[in-house]
Amino acid sequence: MSLADFQQLIRRMYLEKDVARGVDGTFMWLMEEVGELASALREGSHEQQAAEFADVLAWLTTIANVVGVDLSEAVHAKYGDGCPGCGQLVCTCDDAGKP
Amino acid sequence: MSLADFQQLIRRMYLEKDVARGVDGTFMWLMEEVGELASALREGSHEQQAAEFADVLAWLTTIANVVGVDLSEAVHAKYGDGCPGCGQLVCTCDDAGKP
Repeated sequence: MSLADFQQLIRRMYLEKDVARGVDGTFMWLMEEVGELASALREGSHEQQAAEFADVLAWLTTIANVVGVDLSEAVHAKYGDGCPGCGQLVCTCDDAGKP
Repeated sequence: MSLADFQQLIRRMYLEKDVARGVDGTFMWLMEEVGELASALREGSHEQQAAEFADVLAWLTTIANVVGVDLSEAVHAKYGDGCPGCGQLVCTCDDAGKP
């Protein structure tokens, strides 16, 4: 599935509700899912972890829809030419810094 | 860009470092980026918001790589047949519940 197709799927599924709720309220749901992901990473099965990654991605995507950000364009612009830090395709940034 | 291609790009760029750092340390970086996204959603430009969405997606993806979760499979399994709550392509879940 392309990022654009997934964003469109989530748009069709949730945009009306998420626009009505607004960014702040929708961000709260994203945070709840991030917490569930943390929990699954600690003690969940592979299937539980996969489901929580999907949920975090869905909530992130729905917020992007609300504010009109195209995720595919965004990741291409930031990462399409290599690491934003060092510009390399395999990151060579200092390990102590943000990689 | 497909989700699978993006995950492969991030794998090539960061996997070695992120495996060495481990899930916990990498999750901390994800949280820092989530904070920056919150800040950009409050007062950032469209370009700043797009860049922060890209960063959150990249950190989420690199953690998925470390634990061996295929994001494309994960979102297809969870959202490919409609809303996980109501099963509809346009969500009809109760507005008070998790949409």
